[in-house]
Amino acid sequence: MGFAISGVWSAVATPLDEALNPDGAKLDRQCRWLLDNGCDGLALLGTTGEANSFSVAERKAILEGVLAGGVTPEQLAPGVGVAAIPETTELTRHALGLGVTRVVMLPPFYYKNVSDDGVFASYARIIEGVADDRLRIVLYNFPQQSGVPLGLDLVARLIAAYPGIVAGVKDSTGKLENALGFCGLGGDFAVMVGSDPLFAQVLQAGGAGCITAVSNLCAPDLRVVYDAWNDPSRATELARAQARLEGWREVSMAFGPQLPAIKALLARRDGDAGWNRLRPPLMALTAEQRQELDRRVRTLDA
Amino acid sequence: MGFAISGVWSAVATPLDEALNPDGAKLDRQCRWLLDNGCDGLALLGTTGEANSFSVAERKAILEGVLAGGVTPEQLAPGVGVAAIPETTELTRHALGLGVTRVVMLPPFYYKNVSDDGVFASYARIIEGVADDRLRIVLYNFPQQSGVPLGLDLVARLIAAYPGIVAGVKDSTGKLENALGFCGLGGDFAVMVGSDPLFAQVLQAGGAGCITAVSNLCAPDLRVVYDAWNDPSRATELARAQARLEGWREVSMAFGPQLPAIKALLARRDGDAGWNRLRPPLMALTAEQRQELDRRVRTLDA
Repeated sequence: MGFAISGVWSAVATPLDEALNPDGAKLDRQCRWLLDNGCDGLALLGTTGEANSFSVAERKAILEGVLAGGVTPEQLAPGVGVAAIPETTELTRHALGLGVTRVVMLPPFYYKNVSDDGVFASYARIIEGVADDRLRIVLYNFPQQSGVPLGLDLVARLIAAYPGIVAGVKDSTGKLENALGFCGLGGDFAVMVGSDPLFAQVLQAGGAGCITAVSNLCAPDLRVVYDAWNDPSRATELARAQARLEGWREVSMAFGPQLPAIKALLARRDGDAGWNRLRPPLMALTAEQRQELDRRVRTLDA
Repeated sequence: MGFAISGVWSAVATPLDEALNPDGAKLDRQCRWLLDNGCDGLALLGTTGEANSFSVAERKAILEGVLAGGVTPEQLAPGVGVAAIPETTELTRHALGLGVTRVVMLPPFYYKNVSDDGVFASYARIIEGVADDRLRIVLYNFPQQSGVPLGLDLVARLIAAYPGIVAGVKDSTGKLENALGFCGLGGDFAVMVGSDPLFAQVLQAGGAGCITAVSNLCAPDLRVVYDAWNDPSRATELARAQARLEGWREVSMAFGPQLPAIKALLARRDGDAGWNRLRPPLMALTAEQRQELDRRVRTLDA
């Protein structure tokens, strides 16, 4: 069978217009850049996509817009997990209705200290509510934001209960041992790591791929890691890509939440200050922070 | 002017039917019981109301249903804060459209480690989007669930920027010093405490009232505290009410998240096991836990 999702996937950033609404044309360009620069697919509407700052209606419109812009359903794995199960179900059915069968799904994330039984029941209710065998869910483990960790036991239970449908995990803990634990679940379960520096190690352990924010800037380097991790003839190239990913990741994490820095880096790349726009509660980097960011990037490029 | 909200308000629990949809008739009965047993108003659709387990459409329907059931707009302060600002704005406008001017508002709660500037900008965007001078917002400070603390400086800035509209805070930190800090902001800013045992002390410090989960069971005791905290002739009655509130609160907090225990206590009170239903990720207490809960309540009643 093989993995239901694999390779280099991008947690696409969502550009905003002056009213802080999604800028569809600019998003189309970024999607095209990503697919032209090494990405196998687009994990639209994740944390980096500011998904949870958009209404259900806006999320649907963003997905429809990207498809209308020429991205194919097979190239997409949108985020669909919100706090309320009926809306997660609605977003998932909407994606399937457009032929998009892969989704990345946060657990309901308002209540904290919930039990594994409760998280299991949440996913079960969504899967049974969607009731579509085409569905391929990438569980989204990002406890730093969601407050709801997805542990190994829970994930193993979900795989056993919904084989095929529970198809993988995006692990954004940033902890190698965590991603390796998921790799140990074996079978066709696709481990997609969220931390660029860990990508090669996760591939070595049997992981399927990555979904990262830094891909918005360094997609070609992630491509090199994916293609060359097991090819001794490309060791130098691999080391260079790895070093670049580590450097850019570090810069992106140096100013609090990662997304404002990612957007500042995109603004810098495109010479387009509009990329700096974010919806509150996220805020653009200050002029001073952007100067510091620029200084650091020039050091990386040197 | 006086407080825009004061007295004993209930964080009403939302009963569910077998399909885990809101049970309107039972909710009407609970609202009636609360108003007949000492509550000045109903903070519908808070954490205890499982608000963030319902879709935007379901939340609107619940509010409309309670109004249709005979509760007046002045008796309501629904929760309207969700992760996406456009939906918080939509829910707030919906409430205002029904004549409900008081709302309890969480900050956007998906992203963590956001700045005070970011949270300020979030509330500003919502207030300016709603654009209705009738609006009275009770800020909802519940960092244990939301992951987004509302500090004193931030709240003072919001009051200064939107006087009258930023009308109060529900403080659910459970920390007396936190509630007292808010009381120190002075003026007509209404501090509504979320922890029953702290109610009298917060009133002594100039607080406006309470919004609590235990009210679902102990509304008459909260009424006694509110009416008698400053009346030496009622000291014995006050002490008894206070002791009951402390005991019931303790039982409600003894089994993980508070709501399953609150619902189990309501099931016990009404002889109606249906009250135990919750939407995942929250789960009903186990039979064993319910036995232990029953044992503890009998001790309290003794």
